[in-house]
Amino acid sequence: MRLRRKPWIDTAILDYADFVTPLGGDWAALTGHWAEAFGREAPLHVEIGVGKGDFLTELAARHPDVNYVGLEMQQGVLYFAARKAAERGLENLRLVVFDAARLTELFAPCEVDRIYLNFSDPWPKARHAKRRLTSPLFLARYRTVLKADGELCFKTDNMGLFDYSIETMAAEAWQLSNVTHDLHALAEADNIMTEYERKFSARGAKIGRLVARPSVEPV
Amino acid sequence: MRLRRKPWIDTAILDYADFVTPLGGDWAALTGHWAEAFGREAPLHVEIGVGKGDFLTELAARHPDVNYVGLEMQQGVLYFAARKAAERGLENLRLVVFDAARLTELFAPCEVDRIYLNFSDPWPKARHAKRRLTSPLFLARYRTVLKADGELCFKTDNMGLFDYSIETMAAEAWQLSNVTHDLHALAEADNIMTEYERKFSARGAKIGRLVARPSVEPV
Repeated sequence: MRLRRKPWIDTAILDYADFVTPLGGDWAALTGHWAEAFGREAPLHVEIGVGKGDFLTELAARHPDVNYVGLEMQQGVLYFAARKAAERGLENLRLVVFDAARLTELFAPCEVDRIYLNFSDPWPKARHAKRRLTSPLFLARYRTVLKADGELCFKTDNMGLFDYSIETMAAEAWQLSNVTHDLHALAEADNIMTEYERKFSARGAKIGRLVARPSVEPV
Repeated sequence: MRLRRKPWIDTAILDYADFVTPLGGDWAALTGHWAEAFGREAPLHVEIGVGKGDFLTELAARHPDVNYVGLEMQQGVLYFAARKAAERGLENLRLVVFDAARLTELFAPCEVDRIYLNFSDPWPKARHAKRRLTSPLFLARYRTVLKADGELCFKTDNMGLFDYSIETMAAEAWQLSNVTHDLHALAEADNIMTEYERKFSARGAKIGRLVARPSVEPV
């Protein structure tokens, strides 16, 4: 999602400085110290590409026993997620304006229990394949920060990206589970829809979902 | 593939009795004794649904170091595979008229190194899902007869069956590898086309291919 740049946001986001690390903020102090940042030991779940935060704020509200970190490259978008989190008084959620390509700088090896990717940019052109959040390079980053029994939860309505992701994860020796090419046909009560998912599934688009574990040694 | 019943075939197939077990033949003596049937210890690869045998006879010709068994329910179809094998003088190939639902009666546990499924009947209706050769029940049969490091090689042009197979294999804790949704785009030199594959890919249909290993314990 790309919004027009709103200069007022760069100031307004500072209202949420107790749980948001803005552009240029000091995130480096958090690396390897997330339990301290939350003031407790708890499973650490990370969403990459928070957008406006419907998914992550609802998830955090439902699971107060989990520490959530949301990453989003665009500060102008993350602001709206921050506002939602503040309105709901979510104490188990931290947001960082951050580029996922630098994931291994923000988390120590084996620090993360679960990563969520929701409706990531499909980058459909072959020459942009490396930018896809399920490319081999990104999977290697996830493998580094995830615990051995950690997991990657992925949803998309882009079947090209879904097929690519299955192929790539299999090639990189991830163990797949909970694969479906039509998530909404399953009517799972615990599926939390993103803004995007709500819009596109209302138009009849099918949603693919899978869970992948890095526990098998890479081949 | 379903051919009109040709009564002459029931007699003609007996010409190939040295490597074909026809309908009503004594296959039970082979179970657990395939190395003896071939007169040598070698990897045992099985194709389920041989059809007219283009794939399996070419494979057997290319790999004289492997023992091949081809199963086909319809004797009227398997006859043509037998004729091809005889013409090429393939000594590493045995054919059996056999229903794959009884696979665990024909092979001892861990006797098989590799199973091929090529363009299996998609059985698209949900109420026929159990008949699909990648249903949980069939996967359990394959798991029984395959060695721990054995593998299942699957090709189809039916993307509904392909997606179903990925979902089911993941749910049954098989490890996927070599997944592609467009096999011919890879131009792999060692891909041997079936009769069906040649016909449908010429029409522009995409071919899905994957390899699955049962080595992970079922969940």
